[in-house]
Formats: sequence, structure tokens, C-alpha cells
Amino acid sequence: MADSERTLAERLLAGDKRALARAISLVENDDPEGWALVSEVYPRTGRAAVLGFTGPPGAGKSTLLAALTKLERARENTVAVLSVDPSSPFTHGALLGDRIRLSDHFLDPGVFIRSMANRGALGGLSEAALQAALLMDASGRDVILLETVGVGQAEVDVIDHADTVVLVLMPGSGDSIQALKAGVMEIPDVIVVNKAEHPLTDTMVREIKAVLALGPRGGWQVPIVRTEAVRGHGIEELSEKLADHRAYIHAEGTLSERRRRNLMNEVLAIATFRMRRELEASLRDDAAVQELLDRVVTREIDPASAATTILERSAVDS
Amino acid sequence: MADSERTLAERLLAGDKRALARAISLVENDDPEGWALVSEVYPRTGRAAVLGFTGPPGAGKSTLLAALTKLERARENTVAVLSVDPSSPFTHGALLGDRIRLSDHFLDPGVFIRSMANRGALGGLSEAALQAALLMDASGRDVILLETVGVGQAEVDVIDHADTVVLVLMPGSGDSIQALKAGVMEIPDVIVVNKAEHPLTDTMVREIKAVLALGPRGGWQVPIVRTEAVRGHGIEELSEKLADHRAYIHAEGTLSERRRRNLMNEVLAIATFRMRRELEASLRDDAAVQELLDRVVTREIDPASAATTILERSAVDS
Repeated sequence: MADSERTLAERLLAGDKRALARAISLVENDDPEGWALVSEVYPRTGRAAVLGFTGPPGAGKSTLLAALTKLERARENTVAVLSVDPSSPFTHGALLGDRIRLSDHFLDPGVFIRSMANRGALGGLSEAALQAALLMDASGRDVILLETVGVGQAEVDVIDHADTVVLVLMPGSGDSIQALKAGVMEIPDVIVVNKAEHPLTDTMVREIKAVLALGPRGGWQVPIVRTEAVRGHGIEELSEKLADHRAYIHAEGTLSERRRRNLMNEVLAIATFRMRRELEASLRDDAAVQELLDRVVTREIDPASAATTILERSAVDS
Repeated sequence: MADSERTLAERLLAGDKRALARAISLVENDDPEGWALVSEVYPRTGRAAVLGFTGPPGAGKSTLLAALTKLERARENTVAVLSVDPSSPFTHGALLGDRIRLSDHFLDPGVFIRSMANRGALGGLSEAALQAALLMDASGRDVILLETVGVGQAEVDVIDHADTVVLVLMPGSGDSIQALKAGVMEIPDVIVVNKAEHPLTDTMVREIKAVLALGPRGGWQVPIVRTEAVRGHGIEELSEKLADHRAYIHAEGTLSERRRRNLMNEVLAIATFRMRRELEASLRDDAAVQELLDRVVTREIDPASAATTILERSAVDS
């Protein structure tokens, strides 16, 4: 059968890279065809191992993903990489250099690489990222690597789709250690200290151990893996720890629990995002709402009362 | 007139500290009386200078706020401090030490200090924080200092209520510099390098200048102020820069523009939060919704289709 005679869903399910790219673009552009496609292939998802990588910019996440991709390919596993880039009103392209490190794999049909940019709508990005991950899963990829810089809530939401969360640090990631210590950042499943050739690596590993020692006893013990992603050092060990975590959550039944919780949150996030989008449209276009907002600015009506009035209006309208 | 005969609003507007504390508790507990109170006193807001401080944990924000408070009191200005603490499922109390530095001011009637904790509901915390800031404003405080650790979206939302945003760093805040450089973190109005006695201060100032040089020319030039908050060094200079920024946005008309944008966003945030809360309740309590979610978990219905169904149901209900 010629390609043109097969539906996009059929080609996607057969593992066609171009079909996958096209499907993700549909979802990213909020095209109804994209949503219909996800809905159609959804029963074929849930098989891939979804690994999330977060950490400060500059820690070398993309280099690490390139090294892990190489290892998985050597084991004949197919890989999809989804990098979520925050938008910048200030400077663009700073993260682009990282992408280039994945270019070794661009021609390998077993590797699919995609970047997604934050287009301002926070709920929207995370929403689109999950849909993209589901499409990657349906297309038969064995391993899905999600990458974010883990600063804003949108990035945290993206990482929440993963079965295993990896925090990538480098010697000098002082703010991240402080954030872990203060409980501002959640404890991940695996911690990587990349650029481990740095003389301050031992100090950093000690600091991380001290933070982890404050946490609860029992359950999964968070491993700290030293890597030099540029040289490929420590990647085998990281891969082992990832497999250990997977085996652990599988044995404990927490994999299905985690996925259940993530899916619930996702339904809630999508519904909230859509409600917010409708509300934003009414704030922009509705003359009565505009007048109400003007009165908030002139301090006649407080924001909460204005919100109540707007919600009552929209409830009457629907 | 005895205190008991005056309404809470009257006492609040007269600058009574206990009335302010009580009013904020009402808002924090989502008590309808609190919302009514904000609505009543809202016309008396908009006079205070609202300054927002963000930065990684450990940079010394609270010590800096204590030093600034001392300076403002010496100038006979009244001060309110609102610290937004992120919750931690992992470890509590790490930030408590910082609060103690403000204790010099606990007995001064011209200083009001309040902490707010993230109770899980993101929109809720930022919402409550704005209401608290409005109450502080209505109670006649000249200066309102908002403090957050600036990691999650909730903290960013809180800082958005400020007229002037100050990023507090210390030598070694490598992750924050990287985040600024990558455009992940927005450029603030003023940058403070605290703990400036550290030998790496010059290096850090150079790095910040290099990042700022990438930004747009013209307009407000972000000053970098070196402070040693523990010794009170650099606080006068910081205060001058804050006044400069205030004069600048006032002259350019951007103060009212900024406040207009912030108030719009606030109305939207409050409305979205309330919608989300209603939705969460229906997800928990509605048997039909529970069944729908089960079918998402068993991969029969995809999350987006489930969200659509839930939104259609709630539109019919209302």
C-alpha cells in the first residue's frame, strides 16, 4: 500500500518518523485534527519508558541525553527526545548550542528529536508536551526522554508526565542545592552530577548526601551518579540506576499509581487551560468586561469582586 | 470611640496592626468576610510603594529586608513585609532562620511582618498574597516589601504585584545567572549582589553585566548594587536605586501601565483559580467523573477528550 493511501494514524502507529513529526505539529498548533489523532491512538500508549530530565541551564542535560540516546541505540532500543525550551523575551538562542549535540542522531531512523517552545500560555505548553509524548509512545518508541530547564511551573508540569525524574546538576549548582535543601524543589528519583571532572565534584556530592539525609527513611534511596557526558563517562551507571528505579516502582506498584495521578492532573490541567483561554478571550473582546476592568484600575471594584462578576456572567451565557 | 465599636475596616484604615493581622487571616482562610473587607477598603489602595524581592534561597533576602526596614523607619516611613514561603513536603523550617532576622522590628508599631505559606493551591497563594498586600496598602503603610524565593510560578505571580522587582543574588548563584542568561528568568529592575564581602563578588558582577549587555538598549538601565546586609553596607545605595526606578516609571507613565497589566492578570488569576477549584471538587465527588477518569487510566479515553466531556457536563449543569 502506498504511503498516501494510509492514514496519518496508521503511519504513526507503524513508527514512521515523518508521520510522528506531522502529528506533533498538529498538536502544537492546536489543530483539532491533532487532538482527534491523539484520541485515536491513545489505546496504543503506555508501553514506553518515560524519563524526565530537569536541572539548571548549563548543567549539560542535552549532552547527557545525547550520550544516553547512543547507549539505548547500541541496545537496539528506539528513542524519542522532547526538549521543552522556555521562551525568552530577552535573548534567544542561548539553548540552541545544546541542541546541536544531538545532531549525531538526526539521520538515525531509530531516533526522533523534537523541541517545543513555550509560547506564553503555560498550561498550553505542558498540555502540548504531554500530547507529543503520547504520540511518541504510540509510534512505538521504547524510550522517551523529556528535557526541561525546570525553573517555571510549566516545566515542572512537563516533568510530572515522566515515570522517573532525573535532576541534573553540575559542580557550582548552588542555587539548586539550596532549593532542594529548603524544600522548594521536590526530591527527584535520581540525581546526576555532570561535569564530574570538576575539582568541586566531591564537595557537591557531599552536599547532596547531606540534603538527602534530611529526607524520609525507607522506600527508594535516591542514587547520585557522577557523569562526564561529553566523554560518555558514567552513562552506563546512570542507565543501570534508571532501570533499577523502573524495576522498583514496578515491583511496588507505584508506576501505575504515579501514572494514574499524572493522568488525573493532566485532565485537570487541560480543562483549566481551556477555561482560562475562554476567559481570556472574553476579557479581550467583551466590552462590558473591559469596562469592569477599567473600574478595577480606577480602584472602584477590587479584583476578586470583578472576577466574581465575570464568572457569573459566563455562567449565565453558557 | 472604643475599639469594639469600630468595624474591622475602620480600624484597618486607621492603621491598627491587630486589625491588619486579623484581616489577612480572614483572607488567608478564604473567609467571605475577608473578601468583603478587601472590597470595602479597595478604593483606599494604590498609595504604597510595592517592592518585590526574589532570588535563590540563601541569598540573604530576609536580612536585606530587615536592613531596608531599619532605613525606612529612620526616615519615618511605615513598612509592611510579606514573606511568601513555599511549602515543603520534604523538610520544613529551613527558611525559618531568616525570619528571625526581622525580629528586631516585631515590637515597632510602624512595622508589620507577615509570612504566608504555600498550601498547595498555587493560584490560591498568589491570590491571597495580593489581597494581603492590598490590605497592607489600605492600612496606610508607606512601603510594602514582598519577598519570595522565586522558584515556582506561584512565587513569580506574587512578585508580579510589585511596582519594582529586585533580584537578590550572592556570589555563587550560578544557576540564577544561567537562568537570566538563557532568558528563563525575566530581567528584574534592580539586581543586588548580597554577601559582597565574598572574594568572588567582582566575578559575579562582571557576569551579570555581560548578561545585561545582551539585552535591549535604551530605557531603564538595570543597576547592580553590592550589599552586605548583615553589616548594613550598601543599603543606602539600594534605597536610592529603588527611588530612581520609582521616579523613572512614574515619569515614563509605566507605573500605571504596569499596575493596569498586573490588575488584569490578577482578575484572570482569581477567576481561573476559582474555576479550577470547582472543577477539582467535581473530579473528587462526582461518580460519573470518577468513572471517566478510570477510563483514562485504562487507556480507553485520552485526557483531552475526558477534559472536553467534563467541561461540557459542567456547562450543562450551570
